[in-house]
Parts: sequence; C-alpha cells; structure tokens
Amino acid sequence: MQSDNDVVVCEVGLRDGLQMLPQFFPTAEKIAWIRAECNAGVGEIEVTSLVPPKLVPQFADSDEVVRSALDMPGLAVVALTPNLKGAQRGLALRVNKLNFVLSVSRTHNIKNVRREREESIADFQRISEMLRPQLPDNRPRLIGGLSSALGCAYEGRIALDEVVDCAVALAEAGADEIMIADTVGYADPSLVRKTFQAVRAEVGSLPISAHFHDTRGLGLANVAAALECGVRRFDASLAGLGGCQFVPGATGNIVMEDLCFMLDAMGLRTGVDLEKLIGVREIVARNLPATLLFGGLARAGLPRGYAPTTRHTEA
Amino acid sequence: MQSDNDVVVCEVGLRDGLQMLPQFFPTAEKIAWIRAECNAGVGEIEVTSLVPPKLVPQFADSDEVVRSALDMPGLAVVALTPNLKGAQRGLALRVNKLNFVLSVSRTHNIKNVRREREESIADFQRISEMLRPQLPDNRPRLIGGLSSALGCAYEGRIALDEVVDCAVALAEAGADEIMIADTVGYADPSLVRKTFQAVRAEVGSLPISAHFHDTRGLGLANVAAALECGVRRFDASLAGLGGCQFVPGATGNIVMEDLCFMLDAMGLRTGVDLEKLIGVREIVARNLPATLLFGGLARAGLPRGYAPTTRHTEA
Repeated sequence: MQSDNDVVVCEVGLRDGLQMLPQFFPTAEKIAWIRAECNAGVGEIEVTSLVPPKLVPQFADSDEVVRSALDMPGLAVVALTPNLKGAQRGLALRVNKLNFVLSVSRTHNIKNVRREREESIADFQRISEMLRPQLPDNRPRLIGGLSSALGCAYEGRIALDEVVDCAVALAEAGADEIMIADTVGYADPSLVRKTFQAVRAEVGSLPISAHFHDTRGLGLANVAAALECGVRRFDASLAGLGGCQFVPGATGNIVMEDLCFMLDAMGLRTGVDLEKLIGVREIVARNLPATLLFGGLARAGLPRGYAPTTRHTEA
Repeated sequence: MQSDNDVVVCEVGLRDGLQMLPQFFPTAEKIAWIRAECNAGVGEIEVTSLVPPKLVPQFADSDEVVRSALDMPGLAVVALTPNLKGAQRGLALRVNKLNFVLSVSRTHNIKNVRREREESIADFQRISEMLRPQLPDNRPRLIGGLSSALGCAYEGRIALDEVVDCAVALAEAGADEIMIADTVGYADPSLVRKTFQAVRAEVGSLPISAHFHDTRGLGLANVAAALECGVRRFDASLAGLGGCQFVPGATGNIVMEDLCFMLDAMGLRTGVDLEKLIGVREIVARNLPATLLFGGLARAGLPRGYAPTTRHTEA
C-alpha cells in the first residue's frame, strides 16, 4: 500500500538514454544494468522501445531484454510504444506497462511519430480497446504520455489548454496513468505547478507522473514543484543519460542518483539504496567510455553521517 | 522600491570561485569580469576577500579591485571579511557591504577562521560597533553570514536550534542582513524550508539571503524552496565556480546563469540580461582554460521564443 511518503522512480536511461546512441549497447550489458538497478531497489525500468529494429537498431533486442527483465523479482517492466503495432508486441511479451507518447506540440508529434495528434489519440484508443478484454491482472497498464507538454523546440511555449485537452483525451481513451514530460528542458517550477494542478483538476484520481530533462539545470527544482502538487512518480536516468533524437539540444534526463538522494533527504521513501545505485554507473561507464556521465551525488558522495530514509533490504 | 517580484542576485565567483585556485587571476581581468557582469545587470558582486595577502595571494589586489568596482554605476560592492581587521580595511575602502562569515559548525569555524564561534560573534559585535557611528548612507551594510548552516563536512547534520541561535546572535549584534549558507551542498528542499522559516520567525524583518552550493545537484531545488519562504536574495557564481578550501569535495556554487534563467522564467525580475550574462563566461574561460565551467543554459541556450521577464536597459 502506497503512502504519501512513497515515491516511485522509473529508470528511463535504457530507452531515452540509448535511443540517440550510434553504437549498440550489448544485450547482456543492458540486462546487467537492469538487474543491478533492480537490485539497488529501483521499482520500475523502461527497458526498451517497441519500434521496428530497422528504424532504431539499438532496440533490435527488445524481446530478449524484456523477457530477462520480467524474470527479475518485484520489477515493473515498462516499454515505450509509438503505435498499435508496438503495443501488440508489448502485450504478447507481457510487459507490465506500456508507455504511449503523444506530443502536445503538433509539430513535434509529426516529427516524432509522423502523424497528427488526432491520429495518435485514435491509435491510443485502439490500444486501450485491445487491452480492455484482458484480465486486469494480466494486461499491461497503459501510460498516456504527453511529451513536449512544457515547451517545444519547434513551437516554443505550449498553451496550457492544449496540455489539459490532450490529458483528458488520453484519460477518456482509457489511460491508467498520465505522464507529463518536459522533453526539452523548458519548464520552470511555476509552470510545473500550473500545469500539474490544471491536469490534476481534470483527470480525477488517475496517477500522474513527471518526466523532466535537466537541459538548463532546473530538473530537480521542477521535481520539487511537482512533489508539492502531489506527484509521486518520476522518470530519471542513471548518470543523466538521454535526450530526444528529433529535438536539437535536448540532452539529459534528470540524474537518477541525485533525484533519489533529494527524495530520500526529504524523508520520502524511494526503495532505493543510494550507494548501490551509484555502483550501477560502472556498467554504463564501461560500455560508454566516451559519454559524459552527469551527477553530483556520485562525484561528491553522501553527506557525512547521512542517515537514509530508505533502508533497502535485499529481496 | 523592491516588490515581491524583485530578486537580488549576488555574484560570488570572484571570491568563492577564485579563493581555491592556485594561479593568480590577473587584476585587470577580474575588473573586466566585474564590469561585464555589472553591464549584464547583476546588482551585487562580492569582489574580494579582505584577508592578509600572505594567507591568500589571490586577494593581494583587493584594494585595486574594490576601487575599480566602486566606480561602476549602480553596483553594490561586497567584500568578505573574516575579522575586525578586514572590516577596518573594508570601511576605509568604502565597500557597500561587508560579508562576515560565522560557521554554525564549531569545527568548521575553527578550521576556517581559527577561533571559537563565541570569539567570532564577539568580533562581529566589535565590527558592528565600529560601523555604528558612521552615517547610515556612508557605512557598509553588514551581512551576518552563517556558513555550514545546513550541514558540515566535519560534523554532519547541524541542529536547527544552533542555526537559529547563531542567527539571533548576529541579528542582536547589529547585522543588516542574515545570510544562510549551505557550504558543502548537504541541504534539501525540506531542510531549507524548515531552516529559513525558523530563522525568519526569530529575526523579524531583517533581510535573509541564501548561499547554496550545487555539490549534489540540489542547488536550484533549494532556491525554489527558499523562494517559497519569501527569500529574495541569492548568491551564485558564474559557471558554477567555487568551493571552500577547508572542506573536502565542496565544489561548485549554484550556477548564476541557470539561477537567473529560473527566476526570470518564474516571472521574477532579476535585472539581468540572460544573453549578456552568458557572454561573460568568455572572460572566465580565457583565464581559466583548465577549469570545468558548469551551466545548462550556456550549453543549451534560451528556449525558442523565450520572452524574458527582465528586459534590461543599458545604464
């Protein structure tokens, strides 16, 4: 049972962090990364994107990665899907969550998935209808993700009405969770508060999660603002890997280690053992020797005498 | 006249950023840095530390730097002083503000200024008495700074009572402003809220400023928390330079550019032209080619179509 002091963190580095990389991250190493982070107490991991391997060779090993992740105890295995076809694969693979992303920015939606927003919403509806006949415990939970919801590299500011309209459309189409994403790191704490409050007012008790990028250094300030709005689900990536291949300069998800440290220091329970989490960086470092790994906690270490809120017990 | 939407930002890179450097930053280049940042609209700059040149050769040029800075229109020139002797120099130089730092951590105070806290407070009292006979418009404003107030690399957690007691002691001894510093980047938004609210409750209407380090990535999240407590004065350093020479791993003030962007994006007026501010980095870069310059805004640029809250007009 979740209390208001529990926060779910979802690792997205294997999807958002790897999708831009020209080199293939070896399958066994992806699985080692997932296992190590699961062992550190991270409860949700977006392990892949269910796109055609020809489009993104990085995700050619989706089936194998998902199957291995599903064997790990207590882990919610998330896969991104841009369309019905990916969702069908996800259902067949029995992933725990399907993350469907609609861009609130019309231009970004076209660049990202080559279709109008209305077509994406219709596709989401079809996915939802496909999942509905499944037994509730047996079907993937469906995340309705809103990307570029807090600004767009093509369109600039996004009208709040449009964000709310898109959230309502996905909620009515059967989303189990609404995810609001600052894809290009344009958000600030004021905009976060306005947006999350407005969406909350329209989607009832549906869980809302936040996906922030640290492009301009405001990522954790935005998390703090979302926490005040009651948000208790956050995406992040180990060492701040990530970006979006279709928007210029959109580097860096918020750093998982720093996020977990902030939450833990604030007295919130993430389930994550901070020292173990820092240790997982080694897997990323050895596979991506040329990639800059971000993160203050890993550089500076825990404060002297730090008493963690989350005391992790080995599964 | 200040409104609740106005925020004062104070550049501390010339003091906090340079004090650890082994190489001397040329005097003319310090002055160029101050001038450029003043032209970008930064209203306060801590230009030096009034310590014996033998102790910190970096500040051997204090007099010349202060005199040049005092010629710049509209700039409040701040100098750090560890003791009465430095304050006497500051008074003779006619600096606008004297920043006296007391460490709430007993151990850090001894390491930093080689005396007990009580001796530092007595020294502060003597400085205050020295300044009192001066005409109000003619004397430096006296900042009572509390370092290691949110955690200490030697002592770990600092009891909130001790922070409040030190703040009250400096307020009663005549401080014009109380500055609360997270010298080693141990703070989180919850601790910031508790601490600033507790100090606020005891020091009446005295202005309170915040000095945060970004050691573990939480700097701007802590700013956002302090803003909610009504704090409207923040230290920061260009490109996140800085640290404390007496505490291990205490690298990095919050990044001035990212701070100003966050404040401006939130609709607060800093007086700072963001593009001009980014331009000042070039002066630091050419003088410190081996130093890592932090900052998301400088890397990613302003969001597309960004409409600044602060529209800077040339003086």
